[in-house]
Amino acid sequence: MNEFCKKLQLFDTASISDALDSLCINGGLQGIVPRTMSKKICGKAFTVKYGDVSEEERKIGRASDFIDEVSEGDVIILGNNGRYDCTVWGNILTTMAIMKKAAGTVIDGACRDIEEINQKMYPLFSKSVYMKSGKGRTKKIDIQVPITVENTYIEPGDYVLGDCNGVVIVPQNQIEIVLYRAGLIKRTEEKIMNAVKQGMRLEQARQKYHYHEPWKNMEEK
Amino acid sequence: MNEFCKKLQLFDTASISDALDSLCINGGLQGIVPRTMSKKICGKAFTVKYGDVSEEERKIGRASDFIDEVSEGDVIILGNNGRYDCTVWGNILTTMAIMKKAAGTVIDGACRDIEEINQKMYPLFSKSVYMKSGKGRTKKIDIQVPITVENTYIEPGDYVLGDCNGVVIVPQNQIEIVLYRAGLIKRTEEKIMNAVKQGMRLEQARQKYHYHEPWKNMEEK
Amino acid sequence: MNEFCKKLQLFDTASISDALDSLCINGGLQGIVPRTMSKKICGKAFTVKYGDVSEEERKIGRASDFIDEVSEGDVIILGNNGRYDCTVWGNILTTMAIMKKAAGTVIDGACRDIEEINQKMYPLFSKSVYMKSGKGRTKKIDIQVPITVENTYIEPGDYVLGDCNGVVIVPQNQIEIVLYRAGLIKRTEEKIMNAVKQGMRLEQARQKYHYHEPWKNMEEK
Repeated sequence: MNEFCKKLQLFDTASISDALDSLCINGGLQGIVPRTMSKKICGKAFTVKYGDVSEEERKIGRASDFIDEVSEGDVIILGNNGRYDCTVWGNILTTMAIMKKAAGTVIDGACRDIEEINQKMYPLFSKSVYMKSGKGRTKKIDIQVPITVENTYIEPGDYVLGDCNGVVIVPQNQIEIVLYRAGLIKRTEEKIMNAVKQGMRLEQARQKYHYHEPWKNMEEK
Repeated sequence: MNEFCKKLQLFDTASISDALDSLCINGGLQGIVPRTMSKKICGKAFTVKYGDVSEEERKIGRASDFIDEVSEGDVIILGNNGRYDCTVWGNILTTMAIMKKAAGTVIDGACRDIEEINQKMYPLFSKSVYMKSGKGRTKKIDIQVPITVENTYIEPGDYVLGDCNGVVIVPQNQIEIVLYRAGLIKRTEEKIMNAVKQGMRLEQARQKYHYHEPWKNMEEK
Repeated sequence: MNEFCKKLQLFDTASISDALDSLCINGGLQGIVPRTMSKKICGKAFTVKYGDVSEEERKIGRASDFIDEVSEGDVIILGNNGRYDCTVWGNILTTMAIMKKAAGTVIDGACRDIEEINQKMYPLFSKSVYMKSGKGRTKKIDIQVPITVENTYIEPGDYVLGDCNGVVIVPQNQIEIVLYRAGLIKRTEEKIMNAVKQGMRLEQARQKYHYHEPWKNMEEK
């Protein structure tokens, strides 16, 4: 596993999101939630861009091929423009993804076969669940190109972290500073937690440990 | 149990939806998801059409009676026009439905008492969960008439299949061809699954086994 | 525990909602659902009103302090105007709320850290789950003032009941009559349930026991 992934997976999405906030980077993928009971996912983004089909393509209805290009540790991100009316992931792709040792799949859209996927312990995040196929309804425009999900820009190779709260993206060239700040934030929160457990008012503890700018506080020391 | 229901319940909603797609039939009920942890449901549609109440009816607030007319094996479909602000199903109706040996209930709207319903192992699908009564807010217009749920037309007696992915409707007069095609689709998918497990690229397996038109492929043989 | 809370928690939200309906009081909080696997909550409302931040506050990003003022048995109601794009509750606040013996938290908005909150068995209800902080996005306007959640007016000290179906509010000065009517409704429903179990048609049982106006029926006796 990538060195940065090893460090990234020690955090939850809340801490990483706070670190991104401190750097004015937008990373959360709103509306995308876990669909399987599984642990945290962490990996590098493998992106698939989807778009509308033509009248002719509506009749033919081909499936989109991309899974053969996926590498070990990738988090597959399917940018199906938030569509609720058709699915772009199911049982066969899950079997392939497990064989390819993908870290998980994140869908700006819908998936199907979630019971089988859950049994296979494969981590899946999506906006919704439905059963209609994407064939003849949506199509792959390209793979490994930048995509935008709910105003968050994602490049192939960006870092992806997902847990019970959802999914955050960390731009590749920002991973070091984000990890550094997330570490400071986590330690600040631990100090606040200890202080309030010993009876300090939360308001006071937040002031004492510079909750609103934890990185500044820590860097000064 | 009806002979066609016996066959239909051997499939999941994904395979049946693909068979419907191949025949250009619209069958999925978008936005309706399982609310209880229970197995697949399969049966014939018993429809209830709801509509707005008058100012006078708003004050009186009568409940809608229909459950006494339900038969063994029916799937009760309540067409409450997707309303989120009031419920049309709860504990008493569940007790009755179990006594009547209904197969389950599908609501284009909201239900309440889901904890008790879950304990009773009764299969329930709905758009949402809330606690406000439908009394004085919505009313039964008619039973056993055609209704439309999210652009899908449902006639009394149509076949209904529900699982973790949602609910699909199969028109009565199409059940034989749908079951036939679903069988072909299922076998094609099994062949593809076996091929990729033995190392074939998914793209190649899909081409070899005519994934985009599996029924055509199989009929030719 | 408050005497009225002791009585209120014997009911579910469905019965209390029906009692409120009978008095033309609007009490349900639409779209707010349980986020943790926990029992019913019952307590008195501690309200927090949120509002937009200024351009300056967006940069500073302070957290909102209110938890130090919470008392034993309070249900904390966070009126963040249904916002899905940032959270106003998480792990630290949960630890504080448990120390303060709060009864639970209800959010017109989003929360984070739900896995940890669930492990701590703290009852949480919200519209959504996300990971972005509220810091620099929303701010506390005031505490213990009237707020409106989905057209339902809530005053500090109002009674709050939450279960699997959602959350209902009972105005403080209506609690006695609401409890009285809920009792009548519950007994009426038990009579109907017994009658149908012995073979009576539901329609007949509803008529016999005045299901549409159970309080009137019982008061006459």
